[in-house]
Amino acid sequence: MIKVIIVGTGNVSYHLQKAFSHTESVEVIHVLPSRSNFSGFLSKKNPDYKNIDQADVFIIAVSDDAIKTVSGHFKNTPKLIVHTSGSVPLSALPKEVRHGVFYPVQTFSKERRVDFKTIPICIEANDSKDMELLKRLGFAISDKVFEIDSEQRKALHLAAVFVNNFANHLYQIGNEICQENKISFELLKPLIIETASKIKTLDPLEAQTGPAKRNDTNTIKRHLEQLKTKKQKEIYSILTESIRDTYGEKL
Amino acid sequence: MIKVIIVGTGNVSYHLQKAFSHTESVEVIHVLPSRSNFSGFLSKKNPDYKNIDQADVFIIAVSDDAIKTVSGHFKNTPKLIVHTSGSVPLSALPKEVRHGVFYPVQTFSKERRVDFKTIPICIEANDSKDMELLKRLGFAISDKVFEIDSEQRKALHLAAVFVNNFANHLYQIGNEICQENKISFELLKPLIIETASKIKTLDPLEAQTGPAKRNDTNTIKRHLEQLKTKKQKEIYSILTESIRDTYGEKL
Repeated sequence: MIKVIIVGTGNVSYHLQKAFSHTESVEVIHVLPSRSNFSGFLSKKNPDYKNIDQADVFIIAVSDDAIKTVSGHFKNTPKLIVHTSGSVPLSALPKEVRHGVFYPVQTFSKERRVDFKTIPICIEANDSKDMELLKRLGFAISDKVFEIDSEQRKALHLAAVFVNNFANHLYQIGNEICQENKISFELLKPLIIETASKIKTLDPLEAQTGPAKRNDTNTIKRHLEQLKTKKQKEIYSILTESIRDTYGEKL
Repeated sequence: MIKVIIVGTGNVSYHLQKAFSHTESVEVIHVLPSRSNFSGFLSKKNPDYKNIDQADVFIIAVSDDAIKTVSGHFKNTPKLIVHTSGSVPLSALPKEVRHGVFYPVQTFSKERRVDFKTIPICIEANDSKDMELLKRLGFAISDKVFEIDSEQRKALHLAAVFVNNFANHLYQIGNEICQENKISFELLKPLIIETASKIKTLDPLEAQTGPAKRNDTNTIKRHLEQLKTKKQKEIYSILTESIRDTYGEKL
């Protein structure tokens, strides 16, 4: 049995707790808010000390900015300390302790159930035994565990900004255009789902369609005239240029 | 029974044929390639004339550019002629005939099965009886049939470019960043699916996350340094600005 203490009470913590609770091999023995009295908690005078001392891993599931400060409180523990962030390097954790990364590549919100089995978990550690422990922890909840170093994870996180943050903003622009024209956004939802689902079987390079790929200058011109704001026109132009460049090279 | 002749043999034609074949109320009696000898086909000398004359609707499912030319061949028919395009106005069809639009809001490829029941179908016609016929045709295969005029359909098609063509291009950029860093694109797929699925229950305005929304200038600066091409940097900057503008106003 791997015993885990999770620090932080946000979305990642919430979903990790749920996922671990369905396993036979991992037990979450404590969840600590990120503003706890850590020295009191870790002190031998804590009546719960014996229990806490059984932990194998501390998972620091707090905001990126807080990782350094929070993990600093664990300088003197012999346990493995990991964070769950895509963009924070392994080196942000204290050198004095065994440290690692346990990064689930997904967007979490409390309202939405997630199937952890399908979520890739990227792990990193300097020590091979710690890596083994993180693998066991990962495979307890997911079918996909990958060893990824800090440089790769940084790139992965950047790629995630494009496919998650920026894609969602495009949905928002689609929504605005619908509202301006008194069309229900419902009309676009099946298209949004199918566009994303296509990548399961089709490379995005092959899946591309539309006026930019066809270099259909009449439609592009008409679309630019239709758009209301300068920013929307700029986004339309730059993405159209980028698609043209991509397929111009390949033709 | 509504009897349909479909002109065109592309993806839309293929999926419409499949969808109609599962209904009790619609029969596709002919599928004509877009480069057929139309005058021969429509001539009374065609041995199949009696059958053809039973058709209620001709669905012109050809590329946008070909709609005008192809539909021109039907100037003398008393049947209802509809096209299936999001971006072509009703007025592109010959004035002399009963005309309308039957636009399924979805991206089609032959390799992917689609569930037509969930696909919104936008219909338009000048005549109320023709509108009734298109409604029956639409509801035979879908649960969602909307009356949308040409102006609204033009706007909807523009919105679709953002959520479909441009979103797919962002997936492609994510893929490129993965390749450059020897990371499997598989790692991003569950995130892409979840980002799209979130819109079922969450408005994209509420679903937005990431450094641009948080105005996390350190991460934004680091990301811009990481990006390899000028075009990627431009896309990152303009979308980041647009997200900042959106949430700056709301704060």
